[in-house]
Amino acid sequence: MSRDELTKIILPEDKIPKFWYNVQADMPHPLEPGLHPQTHQPLTPSDLEPIFARELILQEVSSERFIEIPREIRELYKQYRPSPLFRARQLEAALQSNCRIYYKYEGVSPVGSHKLNSALPQVYFNKVQGIKRISTETGAGQWGTALALACKHFGLEAMIYMVKVSFYQKPYRRSIMELYGGRCIPSPSNLTESGRQVLARDPETPGSLAIAISEAVEDAVTRDDTNYSLGSVLNHVCLHQSIIGQEVKMQMELVDDYPDIIIGCCGGGSNFAGIAFPFIPDKLAGKNIRLVAVEPAACPTLTQGVYAYDYGDVAGFTPLMKMYTLGHDFIPSGIHAGGLRYHGESPLVSRLYHDKLIEAVAVKQNPTFEAAMLFAQTESIVPAPESAHAIRVAIDEALKAKEEGVSRTIVFNLSGHGHLDLFSYDKYLSGETEDVEFSDAELKESLRNLPQI
Amino acid sequence: MSRDELTKIILPEDKIPKFWYNVQADMPHPLEPGLHPQTHQPLTPSDLEPIFARELILQEVSSERFIEIPREIRELYKQYRPSPLFRARQLEAALQSNCRIYYKYEGVSPVGSHKLNSALPQVYFNKVQGIKRISTETGAGQWGTALALACKHFGLEAMIYMVKVSFYQKPYRRSIMELYGGRCIPSPSNLTESGRQVLARDPETPGSLAIAISEAVEDAVTRDDTNYSLGSVLNHVCLHQSIIGQEVKMQMELVDDYPDIIIGCCGGGSNFAGIAFPFIPDKLAGKNIRLVAVEPAACPTLTQGVYAYDYGDVAGFTPLMKMYTLGHDFIPSGIHAGGLRYHGESPLVSRLYHDKLIEAVAVKQNPTFEAAMLFAQTESIVPAPESAHAIRVAIDEALKAKEEGVSRTIVFNLSGHGHLDLFSYDKYLSGETEDVEFSDAELKESLRNLPQI
Repeated sequence: MSRDELTKIILPEDKIPKFWYNVQADMPHPLEPGLHPQTHQPLTPSDLEPIFARELILQEVSSERFIEIPREIRELYKQYRPSPLFRARQLEAALQSNCRIYYKYEGVSPVGSHKLNSALPQVYFNKVQGIKRISTETGAGQWGTALALACKHFGLEAMIYMVKVSFYQKPYRRSIMELYGGRCIPSPSNLTESGRQVLARDPETPGSLAIAISEAVEDAVTRDDTNYSLGSVLNHVCLHQSIIGQEVKMQMELVDDYPDIIIGCCGGGSNFAGIAFPFIPDKLAGKNIRLVAVEPAACPTLTQGVYAYDYGDVAGFTPLMKMYTLGHDFIPSGIHAGGLRYHGESPLVSRLYHDKLIEAVAVKQNPTFEAAMLFAQTESIVPAPESAHAIRVAIDEALKAKEEGVSRTIVFNLSGHGHLDLFSYDKYLSGETEDVEFSDAELKESLRNLPQI
Repeated sequence: MSRDELTKIILPEDKIPKFWYNVQADMPHPLEPGLHPQTHQPLTPSDLEPIFARELILQEVSSERFIEIPREIRELYKQYRPSPLFRARQLEAALQSNCRIYYKYEGVSPVGSHKLNSALPQVYFNKVQGIKRISTETGAGQWGTALALACKHFGLEAMIYMVKVSFYQKPYRRSIMELYGGRCIPSPSNLTESGRQVLARDPETPGSLAIAISEAVEDAVTRDDTNYSLGSVLNHVCLHQSIIGQEVKMQMELVDDYPDIIIGCCGGGSNFAGIAFPFIPDKLAGKNIRLVAVEPAACPTLTQGVYAYDYGDVAGFTPLMKMYTLGHDFIPSGIHAGGLRYHGESPLVSRLYHDKLIEAVAVKQNPTFEAAMLFAQTESIVPAPESAHAIRVAIDEALKAKEEGVSRTIVFNLSGHGHLDLFSYDKYLSGETEDVEFSDAELKESLRNLPQI
């Protein structure tokens, strides 16, 4: 069919990528090394072995362009991949747009988001190594759900620390994690020393990803049978998500089209990386393509943070990573896009942003929900509040093109559906969501605690 | 690919059926006519015109084998159709089954169930006729959600009476209907005379589909701008759902297989009809295929009801239909599969059951949730409690085949996902779901009020 007939662009199962794409092979400037949290010396693989599977550590530092996806993982990917690329015909019509707007829909995953793409290999490589239990953190609950399911598939236990504000905003996230056999508790908790310390300082804290990470890392460090797993930020997570963008490239070819703009929401960076990184070689080869990361105005890591070494967690358990950061003890306001409430940023995304190969933009909560509503009422799918950030900017870009009288091909990652986020839509519909202004004073305060490297 | 390699069997968009299949063309015995609720005389089309679009009335009584699907509807079907047929490899492995088990997954619809298949044409034909507003009832909320979205697509208002017990079991169903621009209130309500009468008799009633139907019909009868819409039971609804089974036939051909058993859960009957009816011609031509409708033991219409003329609603507003019924004022216990809590049954399903072309089986709530959990933990998808009834019987059939040492091809309709039903799973996981025994005494009582025809 021609590009002007199809609504969904579907690939057959045998087109599921056989390799993950590793952007480290193509970066103009390599990453600066992670540093040991105490000694500040460059990390060695053995520093990471107490909490990560060896294969994942190798992926973390690999500069191979393509890394083979194990057969066992590809079999499980078949349950929902290749995911469809949709042409947003109804949205285009509502905007009276002259652009072609497409979205890659990762919500077809049984957990409702892209997170399963990395949960499956992470648990698999841990299982191969004999690990029995995985601890992790989750923001909005999408990562925790994916990890619980992946653990169920491979017969491991899952222990999930969920950011407190999201735990209560999305009560059924705990239910679905338990249904998949996982255990989920609100963070900060009394189960860990780092959780107890935060609670002692502020018993009413909404929690943050940085706090939950401290708890999950502490859990893994203090138990022999347990490894830690992270749902974003790290190189190997971005690697696993690269199947998204690889599929998009094949799908665009099928309809004889090519993106002018790729858009993804950006918290830790993995879903943005997933759709954008496979286009980096094209960009380096001179293609005129923009890669746009969208973050919440309440947590504007790329657009207002600094590029510096910082911890990934509040307690300083993680290695120091060179990244854009708002400071590891910055606690973002309790916006509904809980998956984007992270002070830091993937070092890969950070480096590429620093090198101006990608762009970033921050959007406020209410205009983002407004875009989500327009999308749901035209394209029918209720988007996750995180994914709605990408929709907001896709709409803005389409409107800009209309003003300029040009047509562009806009592609965004609809990383998940919002059927478990209806509480948040309820609040928006009843006028109870605030556009919290980001506070420079608060930023100054949290940047004061950056480690001196 | 051969049938032993694929996990998902996908059809291209141009294979969306161009015609609905009408089983009335092939039934060995035609339906007995609907009767006017007051005069008990056979219905004329003009009796129905005050609440139904003319095109839908024509479909209701048509004996044409194929009825063309309007282009506008096929365009909207493209957003989620053809839906995938999955091979349940992980479930087969967990059961150590020698059967091939497949499921047709209607949860890929943006509303999460098959209900959109009929909501779109129903609203479309009303719009063509100039109707501005649709009233309807909903049990678990799946139909109401679909109707709200369809009304949004075509610019009509949606007014949805939701069975009270489900309204409170599934609080976010109201949210998603409102997000799509619909209005949803718990039934019985004070907005209608029929609602007020039920509340006067029993202010604590859990409600029922039969009560909600009375309210929605009364709403439509008393307003000129409003028509009524029903999400199951009627011939035209079963007609619209026939695209499910038509796609299944093509998908089975693609992998060179053919079902020995087709299974669907059955409340009003439309999703069972959707998957099963397109196989009726094969069965009549001598194919050895079993078509099995699964109902809840708490509301066993086919297996314990009588085949008689009865009203579709509690107040006696609807025409009298010859169908299996537990009595129009039977109020089923508040099981979590709210979509199956209906005293009556599609007249088409009823006639075919009476003529022994289809079978029926009733299953209890806890074994059904047990099957749902096994399915979620193997096939990854969390099923709607209604759809779980089909899973229960699919598993039972696979186990029976194992005992008998034979291999069978089992196909069931996974009519929706359960991401909005996690409250119900919570109750099951905490041991709070009961297997209410169906009461013969209660049945005797409600059958006493059957109209004397």
